[in-house]
Order: sequence, then C-alpha cells, then structure tokens
Amino acid sequence: MTTPVRIGMIGYGFMGRAHTNGYKRCPDFFPELEHQPVLKAACARSKDKIQAFADQWGYESIETDWRNLIARDDIDAVDICVPNNLHKEIAIAAAEAGKMILCEKPLAMSAEDGEEMCQVIEKTGVQNTVWYNYRRVPAVTLAKEIIESGALGRIFHYRANFLQDWTISEELPQGGEALWRLDADAAGSGVTGDLLAHCIDTAIWLNGTVADVTAMTETFIKERVHQATGEKTKVTIDDACSFLCHFSNGSLGLFESTRYARGHKALYTFEINGSEMSLRWDLHDLHRLEVFDHKDEGALRGWKSVHVTDHSGVHPYMDKWWVPGLQVGYEHSFVHHVADFMKSLDEKTPCAPTFRDALETQKVCDAVLASAKDHTWHKV
Amino acid sequence: MTTPVRIGMIGYGFMGRAHTNGYKRCPDFFPELEHQPVLKAACARSKDKIQAFADQWGYESIETDWRNLIARDDIDAVDICVPNNLHKEIAIAAAEAGKMILCEKPLAMSAEDGEEMCQVIEKTGVQNTVWYNYRRVPAVTLAKEIIESGALGRIFHYRANFLQDWTISEELPQGGEALWRLDADAAGSGVTGDLLAHCIDTAIWLNGTVADVTAMTETFIKERVHQATGEKTKVTIDDACSFLCHFSNGSLGLFESTRYARGHKALYTFEINGSEMSLRWDLHDLHRLEVFDHKDEGALRGWKSVHVTDHSGVHPYMDKWWVPGLQVGYEHSFVHHVADFMKSLDEKTPCAPTFRDALETQKVCDAVLASAKDHTWHKV
Amino acid sequence: MTTPVRIGMIGYGFMGRAHTNGYKRCPDFFPELEHQPVLKAACARSKDKIQAFADQWGYESIETDWRNLIARDDIDAVDICVPNNLHKEIAIAAAEAGKMILCEKPLAMSAEDGEEMCQVIEKTGVQNTVWYNYRRVPAVTLAKEIIESGALGRIFHYRANFLQDWTISEELPQGGEALWRLDADAAGSGVTGDLLAHCIDTAIWLNGTVADVTAMTETFIKERVHQATGEKTKVTIDDACSFLCHFSNGSLGLFESTRYARGHKALYTFEINGSEMSLRWDLHDLHRLEVFDHKDEGALRGWKSVHVTDHSGVHPYMDKWWVPGLQVGYEHSFVHHVADFMKSLDEKTPCAPTFRDALETQKVCDAVLASAKDHTWHKV
Amino acid sequence: MTTPVRIGMIGYGFMGRAHTNGYKRCPDFFPELEHQPVLKAACARSKDKIQAFADQWGYESIETDWRNLIARDDIDAVDICVPNNLHKEIAIAAAEAGKMILCEKPLAMSAEDGEEMCQVIEKTGVQNTVWYNYRRVPAVTLAKEIIESGALGRIFHYRANFLQDWTISEELPQGGEALWRLDADAAGSGVTGDLLAHCIDTAIWLNGTVADVTAMTETFIKERVHQATGEKTKVTIDDACSFLCHFSNGSLGLFESTRYARGHKALYTFEINGSEMSLRWDLHDLHRLEVFDHKDEGALRGWKSVHVTDHSGVHPYMDKWWVPGLQVGYEHSFVHHVADFMKSLDEKTPCAPTFRDALETQKVCDAVLASAKDHTWHKV
Repeated sequence: MTTPVRIGMIGYGFMGRAHTNGYKRCPDFFPELEHQPVLKAACARSKDKIQAFADQWGYESIETDWRNLIARDDIDAVDICVPNNLHKEIAIAAAEAGKMILCEKPLAMSAEDGEEMCQVIEKTGVQNTVWYNYRRVPAVTLAKEIIESGALGRIFHYRANFLQDWTISEELPQGGEALWRLDADAAGSGVTGDLLAHCIDTAIWLNGTVADVTAMTETFIKERVHQATGEKTKVTIDDACSFLCHFSNGSLGLFESTRYARGHKALYTFEINGSEMSLRWDLHDLHRLEVFDHKDEGALRGWKSVHVTDHSGVHPYMDKWWVPGLQVGYEHSFVHHVADFMKSLDEKTPCAPTFRDALETQKVCDAVLASAKDHTWHKV
Repeated sequence: MTTPVRIGMIGYGFMGRAHTNGYKRCPDFFPELEHQPVLKAACARSKDKIQAFADQWGYESIETDWRNLIARDDIDAVDICVPNNLHKEIAIAAAEAGKMILCEKPLAMSAEDGEEMCQVIEKTGVQNTVWYNYRRVPAVTLAKEIIESGALGRIFHYRANFLQDWTISEELPQGGEALWRLDADAAGSGVTGDLLAHCIDTAIWLNGTVADVTAMTETFIKERVHQATGEKTKVTIDDACSFLCHFSNGSLGLFESTRYARGHKALYTFEINGSEMSLRWDLHDLHRLEVFDHKDEGALRGWKSVHVTDHSGVHPYMDKWWVPGLQVGYEHSFVHHVADFMKSLDEKTPCAPTFRDALETQKVCDAVLASAKDHTWHKV
Repeated sequence: MTTPVRIGMIGYGFMGRAHTNGYKRCPDFFPELEHQPVLKAACARSKDKIQAFADQWGYESIETDWRNLIARDDIDAVDICVPNNLHKEIAIAAAEAGKMILCEKPLAMSAEDGEEMCQVIEKTGVQNTVWYNYRRVPAVTLAKEIIESGALGRIFHYRANFLQDWTISEELPQGGEALWRLDADAAGSGVTGDLLAHCIDTAIWLNGTVADVTAMTETFIKERVHQATGEKTKVTIDDACSFLCHFSNGSLGLFESTRYARGHKALYTFEINGSEMSLRWDLHDLHRLEVFDHKDEGALRGWKSVHVTDHSGVHPYMDKWWVPGLQVGYEHSFVHHVADFMKSLDEKTPCAPTFRDALETQKVCDAVLASAKDHTWHKV
Repeated sequence: MTTPVRIGMIGYGFMGRAHTNGYKRCPDFFPELEHQPVLKAACARSKDKIQAFADQWGYESIETDWRNLIARDDIDAVDICVPNNLHKEIAIAAAEAGKMILCEKPLAMSAEDGEEMCQVIEKTGVQNTVWYNYRRVPAVTLAKEIIESGALGRIFHYRANFLQDWTISEELPQGGEALWRLDADAAGSGVTGDLLAHCIDTAIWLNGTVADVTAMTETFIKERVHQATGEKTKVTIDDACSFLCHFSNGSLGLFESTRYARGHKALYTFEINGSEMSLRWDLHDLHRLEVFDHKDEGALRGWKSVHVTDHSGVHPYMDKWWVPGLQVGYEHSFVHHVADFMKSLDEKTPCAPTFRDALETQKVCDAVLASAKDHTWHKV
C-alpha cells in the first residue's frame, strides 16, 4: 500500500500545470515508491479560475485563500506557484503549520528574506525543496554523476547562458497576471532571478560555490504600458544580465542571460572544461549530452553527442520510460523531481535542492545585482 | 460534461504502457474534447501480470480472456496490443461485437488478412484506427501540412530509413514474451513489419501510394536459441530489408530498415525533395524539422532547423503543452493520437490511419517481401 | 635535387584548374618528395582559350592537338581532363607513347572500353592513376585506415549517396562545352558516371567488391534545348540513379545519386556499419568524420564528430598543413593525389586507384545501367 | 601586364608559411588584378633556416638582418612575421624606408607603441595592413555584408570566444623560438593579444567600437621551464581572459579566450543578436554561417545553416574557387587578404584593417589587461 502525500497547490499558471503533471505521472512511472502524491486541493484568489483548473487536472477541492489551505488537516504538502514576492510569507506560514513545502524558484526576493525562510524551515524541520527542475533532466543528472566521479580532472572553466527573445517588442506590456515577470515589484528582478538563477543553481551543483562576481545589467526598453494602470511606466527589471566570476575551486565562470537574443527561445546551455574531460548541454535538445574525453587516444578523439535514452540502467531515470533512442521532454524533469521528493520521504533524507541550497543561488543573484549597480566586484 | 469512452486494453507490454499513458493524459491536455477515455479493463492470459498492470496504471478491472473483454457491455473500445498473429481474430470479433478498435501496427500478417479485417470493419461500421503513431509527432504533422499546401512543388524523391542495432549479438534468443518480434510465426516478418511499416505509412501519407518495388532482405544471424524450446532454431525473420520504388506521382523512393546498424537506436528518418522545397526529419531529435526553401533568395539560403515548439498556433499540437523552446518527446505522439481519436468521435469523422489506410501499407510490405523472395520487381 | 615530372595537361575546365592547383602546391607542402611536377604544356583545340589558361596558371607552352602533345619528348605525364568519350583514344595513344597517365574519372564509356585501356596500359607498363580524388580527403583516408585495422568487426551495411540540385530548371540546356555532362554521347551516362562512380570507387576501396545489383534510373526532364543545334532534343542521360547491392563480403549496399534533390549541392555521404564500429562522412563538412565505437563502455557512448585536423601525425596528410582546428577544403584532395603520385614514382609503386582499380567501378556502373534497363538483378 | 609587388618576408614560422601561400596563390585565383606579389626575399637571423625556407617556397634571395632587407631597392613591401616585441622597430624603419607594410597581429605591445607606429605610417603614407585574417573568411565577410545592409535591426548583444586546449600540460615549456607566445617579454600578453585580439578586431568591424570593459585574467600554471635557461620560471602571460563590455552603439558584449578549454582546438565563434536577425559563426566549420531571420513568417522559422560556397556571385570570394557545396579552408583567408591588398593598390585605396584600425583593437586589449589588474571598469 502507498502512503498518500496530499498536495495543496497554490497557483494555477504555467508552473501549476507543470508541477501537477509531475504529481499525476509519478505513480504511473515510479510505482515502486511508497509515498505517492494525491491532488487534494488547489488554491487561488479567483474562485472561477481555480475551480476550472481543479476540474481539468483532478484536484479534489479548492480554496481561495492560501491561509485556509494551509490550515487544512488534510493537506500534507504545499506547493508554492505564485509570484516571487509572495514566497516568503506563504512558506513561513506553511512551515509553521507543519506542512512540507515545494517552492517555485527563485527562493525569495533577496538573500536576507531567504535566510529568514531557511531559519523557519530548519526550526520546524519540514521536508522542503525548491523547483530548480533542470537538475533532473537526465542528461544534466548524468553530467553530475560524471563530475562526481572525478573524471573531469582539475576544472578550469564553467560557462552558462539562458537566452530568450520574447520581450523584444516594445508593444509588450508589463505586470498583471501573465506578465508579472516584467514587474520588479512582483518578480524582484528580471532575467537574473528568472533565468540566471537556473544557470547558477546548476553551476553550484556541478562546480561548487561562487566566490566573487563582476556583473552588468541592461534594460533595453525603458518604458512599457503597465497592465495595472494602462499607463506607460518605467521598466524596473533587468532585460539582460551577464557576469564573470571565480568559483571557490579556482575555476573561472562566465554567465549570461537575456530576453533579447533573437532566435533563441530557451537556450539554456552550460559547458564545463576539466583537464581530462569537457561536458556541455543545451536545453533545446535536452536529451543529449556533449562529451569530449581527452583519454580517448589516437586518431578518433572528438566531441561525442550522447543520446541520453539508454534504459539499461546507465542513464539516470531512463529505465522508467521507453526504449533506447526515444527521447523524453521538458516536463519529465518535474516528474523526476516529484519522484525524488517522494523517495526522500521513503528514505527520510532531504530532497535537494533544499531551501538552504537555493539560498546559495540567491546570494549569488544578490551579489550580481549589487555589482551591476555599483560597478565593482562583489564577494558572495 | 464529457462522454466517457470506456477502454478495454488487450496486452500490457511496451505498447500497452504507451497507449495507456496516452489515454490518461488526454483529459489533462485536451480538456476541450467532449469524448474522453476511461480505463475500464485490461486483459491478458496471466492474471498476476495483468492485475499488476491494472493496479499500476489504474484500470478498473481485469480479464484473462479477450473474448470475455469483448463481450462486456461496459467496454466501448478495444485496444489491441498483442503480437501481430492475433490481430485479425480479435479485431474481427471486436468489430462484430460493435466495439470501436484501436489496433497496433502492422495491421495484419498479410494484405489478404488485412482485406478481410477491413471488410468486417466496414460492414460493422465501428470507429477504427491503427497506431502508426509517428504521424502525430508535431514535426511530422507539420511536414504533412506543408506538403498539403503545395509548397514543395513537383516531388522528385522520397527516402526513409529505420535503423537500429539491438539484435547484433548472437547471444540474443528469439521468441517468448519479450522477443516475439524475432519469431516470424508471431510477427509475420522482421524489420519489414516492425520498422519499415512505419516508414511506409508516413510515406504514403506524405507522398501518396507506391506503384512498384524491388527489394532485398537479409538474415545475418541464421540461428538463435528459441525461448520456447531452449534449442538453436533457424531464424525466420528478416534482419534487414531495403527497397527501391516508384510512387504513383512519379517520384522515386528509397527505403531501408535494419537492426544491425551499429550506433543507431531508433534512427527513423525521412526526406522529401520537391522542386521548390525539401524537408527532412529524424526521430532521434523528433522535435525538429529540417527545411530547405528554394524561394529564400540571395545569399542566405540554407537548411533551417525548425524547433517545432511554438505554442502560438503555428505548430501542430504545441499550443497544448509548454512554451517555445521546450520540447516534447516520444510518448506525446500517442497522446495526440488518443486526442484525435476522441475528436473524431466528437466530430463523427474517421480517425486516420484507419484499417483501410493501414492496409495500403500492408500491401507494400507484402510486395516488398515477395520481391525479396523472387528477385523481381513487384507491382503493389 | 628534385626530379621533374613534366606535365602535359589536356583540357582547361573545372578539373583542369583543380589538377593544376594540385601540381603547383605539391612542392610547397610536400617538399620532401624527390619527384615534383613541372607545368610543361597545356592543350586544347581553341588556341585562345588554352593560351589564356596557360598564362594564368603558368604552363610553359601550349598545344592545340593532343597528338602533338603526346609526341613531345619533353612531356613525361599526360593529364586527361576532357569529356569521357575521349578518354580511351587519348589514354591508349599516350600509353603507347610511353607517357605516364593521370586520367579523369570515370575511366571510360563502358567496362569493355576500360578493359581495352587497361590492357594497353599494363602492356606498356606506364605509371597511371584515375582521379577519384575523394579517397584523399583526410577524413576519408582516415576511414580507410580504421577499416583496415579491423576495428569495425563484421560489416553489415554500406550506404552512400551523392545528391545535387543544379539541373532542376527546365530552362537549362544540354550539350556544348559547359554542359556536356547532360549529353550521353559525351558523358556516357548521367549521374551514374558523374556522381555514383565516386560513391562506388570509395565503397570498393573501403568495403571490397560488389557482387550484384538491382537498379532504377529516371530522367525527370525529358527534353532540353541542345546547345549544338538550339533545338529541343530528347535528354539521354539519367537524372537520378539508385541501386541495392550485395558486397562480396556479405554486407548490403544502398546507393543513390541525383541532380534533383533540392537543397543539396554536393551531398556526397557514406556510412559503414560494422559489428563493433560505424563510420560516416559528408562532403559538405569534409574535414569531419563521424564515429560510433561500441567499445566505449558505460553511460558515455555516442557518435563522435572527429575534426580531422590534428597535425601530430595521427590524421592523414594533416601534418603538412596548419595547426589543430584549422580545416582544409576540397582542393586539398587533389594536392594529396599529386603528392601520392609523385611519391609512387619515388618508391616505384603503383598509384591507386590505377586504371585497373577504376575498371572495377566501371563494371558496377555498367551492371547498374543494365539493371535499370531490363529491371532484373545483374551480377557485376 | 601585371605590376609586381616585390615582397620581403621577415620570419619563416607558421605565419610565414600562411602568408607566403597567400602570395603564391593570388595570381592563380585572382588573375584579373593588375598588382601581383613576387617572392623577392626572405629574412631571418639563421642563415640555414631561412635558406631552407626560401628554397622550399621559392623566394629569390635571403637576408639575415632585417635592416638589410629594408634597405634593398628591389623590395616594395615588407611582411612582418616575427614576435610581437619586434613589430614596432621594424615597422617604423620600413615605413621610413618607404616600404609598404603587411604586419602580423597584434599590432604592438601596447596602444602607446601602436599610436607611435600609426603616426609614422601615416606621415610616410605607405600602404599598410595588419593580418587580422578572419575578416576574409567568406562566411565572416558575408556576415559583414548582411550587417551593413541593416538587416539585423537594433543590435542588442555581441558575444565571442576563442577557446583552445594546447597548454594544459604542465610539462610544456615557455619561451624559445616555438613557444615565444608563452613568454610575456616576447608576446606582450597571453591569450589576450593572441586570441582575444582576433575576436575584438572582428567585433569592432561588425559592431563598432567598444566603450568600456570589466575583465578577469588567470594564469593556471604558475611556473614553467623556460627554454632560454632550462629553469622553472614564473609564467608571466595570461592563460585565460574574459571580459564584459558596452559597445558604443549600446549593445552588450561578452568575450572569452583561453588555452585551457579541453576539447577545443580553435573554437573561435561569434554571435550577434539584432532585433530582426541573428548571426553566428564558428571557425571549426568556417564555411558555414548560421542565420535566424525573424522576418521568416509562420511555422517555418528557425536557424539556417548557410553553406557559404555558392559561386554565382552571392557569396564573397567564392566565385574564384570551385562549385557550390565544395568548401574552402583556413588558408584561403590569407589568399583573400593578399588579393585585397593587391586590389587596394590597383584602386589606390587603403587596405583594411590598417594600422589605425588595428590600434583600436590594441586599445581594447590594453583596457582589458588594465581592468584585470585593478578589478575596475575601464573606458577604452
């Protein structure tokens, strides 16, 4: 018999759908787990919208105030899928109510807020994780395994970027339900928290902490109509952000994110160069990992494109899916995250990235934004 | 309110899982459809195995004899996921019982059998489809739309292959539950029915019927241990099959399939060359379509790699999923097939490929196998 | 001191330029060779044209009748760069005059003619080679070395194609100086002799002789204006040709060539699948070789893209050029062919492919054209 | 009749060979030019080595002191192919002797030196150019033409890198004839002047001047045996250098170079993102240009890989070479540079990049190195 983990979902947007799909597919593809999610309640201020969402996805009930959701005895875990400026209050309340928490990234509006959240979480001892989902793309998880094995030797370089092009038009408004990511009041920052945070989380996971940074941000379109007022208002987010850094292990880092790179929809790539091996990955073809192995001797050394679909146990998670050659997609990273969260309950271990892990990323984001503001190097 | 389509699934193997996942995700991602599948019963001879399958996937009940399943009043549609030599008997019985049928490919052991099945199906008038799932990979559906628009001009060439490498080892046995595809008694043929049939179905869909063929088959490993007897037995399937052909529209075709192409796991590719445009696709990166448009003038003409993930309505099915740049995978082709089957019920239209459509592919397979046997050209 | 090899060039077209460039660069990049070419004389019927050619490229003198060229005492080697229907007469005369011969491919108008040429060549004992230049693209030569080492294991499949798109327009005329390749009287055949012959030569070199074939040809544009008459005349060449075959080593072959594959300019590719390793190559990126090595164990198996530019001695010819990462191009294959011809004189060995080697390709072409005509399998 | 430009070559290393090959092929492939190079004299301190070089490549005479070379009446142009610390003295002397100058990059050891060189050059009025050869790779020249046309719209981003891996071994010594690039006394800097300078020159050419920078350098291997002394000596060059910048047109830049990126031999890439179009290029496949055109409407928008080999006049320089689909290589950039230098003499125009153009790159290099030293932003 399985042990149900009764989910209370707050939010119903893009991430609400992605997480929910993760919950629903977990028992189908990871039936061996003892803990399994149950869609107990969905919550949002608009009763109509959350009812429609609950009906479509199969949540048993709805709430229109997240405080009520947290107060319910039949909720074991709260999933926070709301704009970043609401994470702190909800997370602290949920932790104090003894609920497990699965929180969308970035963790908080600032490292200061994040630290406060971590302290409550740790005091209450509730199981927690932050949805840095890309760690659980099989090719990325494979990269982690290879790096952990020491096969790369001494690390010299890490570079990553996350390039999009969806805000180039001046006609695009800011704010409101759909475009809160363009409003610093709701989002905290622009691409730094939205896109770079993903790059930083993966980087820290794969290559350790960041020591110091020098950064540059830009807002290309200075004013946009705000959906709340209908008036042209100053754009307060960063449209683009790049930074140089030193990692604590002595390697050099180079990061860039933007929503103004015409032609790139979700070009999240990273590359790591070690003395013995290099790896690179690209979200646009997320089922592949590129590998250069210096130990290949003779005439046939070169970059390999590994199709990470082998089900014979060598490729992470892939024994759960289809047969070699048949790729999975974006949404599978969330299914894997759900499965690992359930597994962490089975095994009574933390589920990375925890709030504390995510705080490390927040600190880098803060240093980056501070450096971009005062044009000096900042320690993390 | 939705109208339930109560599914009776026969089989629980790889395809049983893939189809079931398709049924389960349809209401989540295609909630606008009136008809929606319900997992009513699963059926196989082994009670233990089918019970485990039903428990994992959420079928309400089980049967151990497909005749009983077909006899049930609470089953609307029968899904045939068993070895090819059983398709005919089950399909005819199901049709005569008035059940809708979703049948795995290839349709039958021969075109003669297929014709008989079609006649019963058409006489009874039950809704029917055959799971040539690759038609509903978004990039493949997009290819169809472009070809239908006439943008390619006069067609000169069509080429396709399906290359795998999983039977190279001489140690691999034949027959039994897992390896019935290596046993001609159960499968009818080897790669011709298993792999080439996919290539042919897509080809006919995109480029029209095939007029005549000359073919070559080979069995590289002549004897393998049979799992039924534990003894070395002659291998009766084709390990590799290739053929040349003329399409009815005057274009030339070239097809190849094998399970002995080291390095290829599921290299299903097709390419079509028209006077104005060429298209090509590869299952290994199924979310991309390669396009060469001769109308691009000047210095910037070249092959484009279209990442078929745009959700703004221009890429088939993709408005149902995530945001631009985020790819879907293999299993989505089955979700789309289920959704289109439900939609065909909403709209009271046939759901392609029907048994009659699939029979056309069967005829080409038969001509190919006959040509390989007598070394002459065969008309289809 | 070097020993001069005084070249008499017959022809001044595309191949005349490519060969001449090969002669001129040999002493610069292969200075260690004792024999070195000297541009002694160029020959063509048009005095003005051949004088201009000689002036541009630095030939010391000209002739307007190839018989005079062959008669000259100061010519050591004759390079035959004229339409295919003239190869036989010139080659036989040159051999009988004791001249070395470097003959453009294909060798002859038929295997019968080729056999006659071989017999004279062998009787006279003159040094000879046929310009199947692609053997000496470094990546192709590397493929040969790997195959020779036995690393591929048992060979199952070989496939090649040569796809172009330059004759799709109906407005293109046939015949004349520039377009003799569209006139069967001058060229013998269409794509079979022009393009497929390259594929066949490489295939035989890499995978051994061809045993039998079944083929299909097509002429898409039935009539074109002939430049000799200005009138619409039946097109007598094959626009497209494909064939299936068995190699003598038991592997299966698949070949295709066409000038109607929109988007492909010179898509000469080959792939060979062995039990242990597969290789593939594409002329469009000729400095790369793709390799799949089944002996790579564990999670990091995949196709490698080897950039064949290492100068440390492991990549054929590349120690003569630049530094790793810096690619060479099409013309280098001819420089290498010249250098190997000179080296064969230094070492008193034959220079492959000899006329006899090229005859084997001619025999396959003849069998292919015969099969396309009578629609039966032909032994080679 | 052609007008000879009598070349005096100082140096005989890698660049001496590359430039000489450029001179020799110019009349073959650009016969229409009035001015044509003649290999008059080669110069180096070692008589044996320069005699061998002259013999191999066909220089008419040698010198062992560059002052003597410059003093000769039969020398029209001096090619400076010696370590960077000698550029200034030779260039100034050559200019004062009225010789044209073709100088290897980077121009000088510092912008201060470069300014002094420019002033002499401009006072004497001699024809001059600096060998930033990558401008004349056809795909790069094509990028320039497209950008000049305005097709990219407003530019948001420019990023470039030049990654190598040849100095990772600690065993590699520094200094001496072959490895002067690892010795700051001879080279001025490490990867900044050697590799980044190429990226910067192209960037300024394509996207205009750089306004300010923040940079980071690293020396991974701190000590290496010096070939002059045989003793372990502090390494004074930068092994890696990266920087962020603003261009004067408001776009953002990101640059990186290193010799510690395992797997990359000569990964020089650039990408430019405009509101309407993006372009990218990679030296490893230098005959291709990647293009994303936002004006492509509908379902078929994507990145195009343009094979820059069309000879019909639309691709720069390619009408001089072979036929569509047949690629050129690294060395062709030098042939084109020579041809353009000769053409500039025909047309009495400057030949870009001039010393003044190259000084702009030097200024950015100086600002980068200064920023890396004091960890602040520097204006250029």
